[in-house]
Amino acid sequence: MKQSARGALIVFEGGDGAGKSTQAAALVAALRRDGRTVTLTREPGGTPLAESVRALVLDPSHAPVSAVTEALLFASARADHVARRIRPALERGEVVICDRFVDSSVAYQGAGRGLGTERVLELNRWAVQGLVPELTVLLDVDQTTAEVRRRERALATDRMESEARAFHDAVNAAFRELAAHAPSRYLVLDASAPAAELTDAIVDRVTGILAERTEVSA
Amino acid sequence: MKQSARGALIVFEGGDGAGKSTQAAALVAALRRDGRTVTLTREPGGTPLAESVRALVLDPSHAPVSAVTEALLFASARADHVARRIRPALERGEVVICDRFVDSSVAYQGAGRGLGTERVLELNRWAVQGLVPELTVLLDVDQTTAEVRRRERALATDRMESEARAFHDAVNAAFRELAAHAPSRYLVLDASAPAAELTDAIVDRVTGILAERTEVSA
Repeated sequence: MKQSARGALIVFEGGDGAGKSTQAAALVAALRRDGRTVTLTREPGGTPLAESVRALVLDPSHAPVSAVTEALLFASARADHVARRIRPALERGEVVICDRFVDSSVAYQGAGRGLGTERVLELNRWAVQGLVPELTVLLDVDQTTAEVRRRERALATDRMESEARAFHDAVNAAFRELAAHAPSRYLVLDASAPAAELTDAIVDRVTGILAERTEVSA
Repeated sequence: MKQSARGALIVFEGGDGAGKSTQAAALVAALRRDGRTVTLTREPGGTPLAESVRALVLDPSHAPVSAVTEALLFASARADHVARRIRPALERGEVVICDRFVDSSVAYQGAGRGLGTERVLELNRWAVQGLVPELTVLLDVDQTTAEVRRRERALATDRMESEARAFHDAVNAAFRELAAHAPSRYLVLDASAPAAELTDAIVDRVTGILAERTEVSA
């Protein structure tokens, strides 16, 4: 197989409302304008089996699901998604853009729900059989804005809100820590920047990576 | 909590047709005659979520499921079963009898499907959060009978049958190896012995274990 036929997996990560799906769609459009074949997918889900697992986790009649059960269900959905959709697309030489991947499990189940980031990372490395994204775009929630919002709401804070804050702080810290451990494989952007500015930075970095690979294989 | 209020988990393992459900039912009947509160359950399944996961794995429209995906799905079903049915029953001081447990995954996915017994054991230890059965009854398929049957069918053997034999040999070897590593926690019986004889041996061993614990806590 020619080196140039090898595909590339690009992942978007970050908290809810960070703009992942908007930026993923913008990247897909830019790459397609360049004539590239792109698969856009998301987690949890992406295959019929994985979508069924996602539905099980979200089904209120099954609540409350333990953190361990939830982590294993998400890992099994991901294993199917990688084996039957992502790897085949990469083997056809396509660019695969995925909205959430391993890092989301590490952040939400490992840090947020307290299972331990190392344990959840190891579980998911096995689930994806070692597949590592070419690039992960982390849309980081702006800390200053978040803090201002917290102070404004301080008088109305109850226990639930405080727990939710601690949960999201742990999640965001885990996302940043993963990026800090492998800076060459991450693009960390402030999610509060204008959308068009973010798109430019993402498209620039991804097209750079794809061009480099083509040169290597030429 | 009084020591005597602690329940006991008794597991039945072995290949298909070894007589696990017959012997499990006979043990339940004997313990109930003794006035004990018993929960009888089975895997994969045992809770609504776990039964839904079981149905997903068996659904032919999702085939072929990769070995890794299957192992993760069974582990997630088991995590829910342990968290929401087995542990609560044990905490109420009940005897829980379970038809298949961790060893079946180690034997079928680890050895049979080639994922590695250590890897699948470690995954499932995490899924059950360290819960170890008080006793595992292994109904071992008689090797001599199996070999005679193989020789009789030798002329008719095709590749599929030969693969099926290799699969079941690997599964049975894994069951025996797990028992050999912790002999005090296993009762290994020749599944070809008369059913009543097997029941006597099982009831004898289990009532002995339960009596010992009552003495300790008296």
